[in-house]
Amino acid sequence: MPKSHAGRATPRPRATLFSSLAVAAALCLLPLAAGAQARDREHGPWEPLLLRDQGSFFVGGETVSRGPGDDVTVGQMYVQYQVPVSLRRRLPVVMLHGCCLTGKTYEDTPDGRMGWAEYFVRRGHPVYVPDQVGRGRSGFDATVHEQVRAGQRPVSDLPRINQASHQRAWQIFRFGPEYGQQFPGQQFPEEAFDELFQQMVPDLIAWLPAPNPTWARLASLAERLEGAVLMGHSQSGFFPQRAALSAGATDDIRGLVSLEPGSCAAAALTPEEYVKLAAIPTIIMFGDFVEEDTSGIWANALRDCRQYADAINARGGDATVVFLPDIGLRGNTHMFMQDRNSDEVADVLLRWIRDHVERR
Amino acid sequence: MPKSHAGRATPRPRATLFSSLAVAAALCLLPLAAGAQARDREHGPWEPLLLRDQGSFFVGGETVSRGPGDDVTVGQMYVQYQVPVSLRRRLPVVMLHGCCLTGKTYEDTPDGRMGWAEYFVRRGHPVYVPDQVGRGRSGFDATVHEQVRAGQRPVSDLPRINQASHQRAWQIFRFGPEYGQQFPGQQFPEEAFDELFQQMVPDLIAWLPAPNPTWARLASLAERLEGAVLMGHSQSGFFPQRAALSAGATDDIRGLVSLEPGSCAAAALTPEEYVKLAAIPTIIMFGDFVEEDTSGIWANALRDCRQYADAINARGGDATVVFLPDIGLRGNTHMFMQDRNSDEVADVLLRWIRDHVERR
Repeated sequence: MPKSHAGRATPRPRATLFSSLAVAAALCLLPLAAGAQARDREHGPWEPLLLRDQGSFFVGGETVSRGPGDDVTVGQMYVQYQVPVSLRRRLPVVMLHGCCLTGKTYEDTPDGRMGWAEYFVRRGHPVYVPDQVGRGRSGFDATVHEQVRAGQRPVSDLPRINQASHQRAWQIFRFGPEYGQQFPGQQFPEEAFDELFQQMVPDLIAWLPAPNPTWARLASLAERLEGAVLMGHSQSGFFPQRAALSAGATDDIRGLVSLEPGSCAAAALTPEEYVKLAAIPTIIMFGDFVEEDTSGIWANALRDCRQYADAINARGGDATVVFLPDIGLRGNTHMFMQDRNSDEVADVLLRWIRDHVERR
Repeated sequence: MPKSHAGRATPRPRATLFSSLAVAAALCLLPLAAGAQARDREHGPWEPLLLRDQGSFFVGGETVSRGPGDDVTVGQMYVQYQVPVSLRRRLPVVMLHGCCLTGKTYEDTPDGRMGWAEYFVRRGHPVYVPDQVGRGRSGFDATVHEQVRAGQRPVSDLPRINQASHQRAWQIFRFGPEYGQQFPGQQFPEEAFDELFQQMVPDLIAWLPAPNPTWARLASLAERLEGAVLMGHSQSGFFPQRAALSAGATDDIRGLVSLEPGSCAAAALTPEEYVKLAAIPTIIMFGDFVEEDTSGIWANALRDCRQYADAINARGGDATVVFLPDIGLRGNTHMFMQDRNSDEVADVLLRWIRDHVERR
């Protein structure tokens, strides 16, 4: 639970309206309600979700002055969370999205099945879904844009906005060899490509200061949660490690989950950085069609990450690289949290968290 | 439930994991869990939330080509929703945010209390929270920006980004006569101004085509839900009416909730438009300090909306203007969904929906 909530929240005057008694009363009538409403639950069988807590908050950010009496807050990171009612305390999991996407990545899949955020909640984990700094509900710093508009800075100062095309996504997400053509047996729900394209938003990562503020925000979030597993995907696939390196202490970053990172920086890390990262259990996961991808991007990334994992393990760390076809999960694209077998892929991570982090 | 989910969703292979039986088993142990976890629920007493469904999806959007093999989707509207387990079927409520904000407006309040989205869910209403087209997780069309960067268009073509300052927000949100000085008895949680400023994001409404695509998306959403109450705030305060006017038929827009709209366009609407709008029950709500606000913006808006309501009622419509101090709720700012008495303000709307819409 966010620590900053403590000591601030005033008891709600109407709390009794929603008391446990009322909930208990409603639950006694569950079979009735289930019967009446089963047809409306289109995800599958009727499965009510019981939450202990949910909400959203911001991590970090700073006030900058654009002039006298003209202050704005920038660099904050929006986080939405749900905490299940469960009998065993599981570790919070932070799920960060990749390029040109938002936290939506982990909500409903494009074909309307349950996303990983709810799936992990139903398996007992509190789940925290941020939007990267500069994206979605985290907002961005528009100052440079307005200065160029006002003629105070040259056009050449405008940073790039990366609004990835359908065609580019098709290649990077490894749906097939050419736009509109699918790899045989690929698992992304083909009827829902258009819904994935709706999820894609302009990416203003080039507008951010260095180092990317999201790294420190992730470290702060883990600290606030008093321990969390950090998960990143693609563009943010190595952000969990960057968070660990940016943190004063890494004790609260309990596990590093890298989903198809663009790079694992194997040759760039210093010995000191390796020592720090080797202290945290790590899993790195890649889907199928890595060799079939003619861009070579993902084959390079997988090779780099295997080197990184070897280096971590050589220092006594616990790093696992999972190439999904090797464990019998075939056809996965870059978006395996949305592929048809997304639950099965999630189960691999859930088992790893239990065995390598929680039971460590 | 979004209609587009129907016929697309495949039954989840692991559905049995989360069967009603498992839930029932968990519920039998609730008192145990409650005892163990009560300290962690910082919102107040432990009040588990039972959901029948939740998720997110997009409404609308179109594919535009920026060149050969370079297509992007723009104009889509992101919507997040929760459906409670409840024995009586209540009308869905769509909650749209205002300028420089996102759907976060209706989530946790800045001081960590329950926001209106969950509050309405706990009172039995399915709640749908969009981000306006061009904002937050809905994304925006960055084409013009990239064309200016590439020198294909002049700087003067760059549309404005409105990143409102703390000082501007202080005035518009009516926290007090001058920045840092509060109106006596104002209800916004003063310890949480900084958290509100974190919620503020750049507003790209000037980048949108006319008419604003959000209007038609709201109408589509109401149709998809087979009936909904549309709520707008401030910048979007009159969007429910714009949605009704943009819809082919307004049958699915069952109620119009205008929270401090910047204008009610009383003098600008045509007789035909008034006829269309008079068919839908309407509530317009304003907080306190309207006369104290030296900008005159809100006094003008309130006057305009009273004229609008009179015109609706003169045509046999059902329009109510609620000036909160008139019903004994004093000290409310422009952000009354986040003020300390946000639950009480919500109760006024909940009663109105029941009496003027559902029992109509």
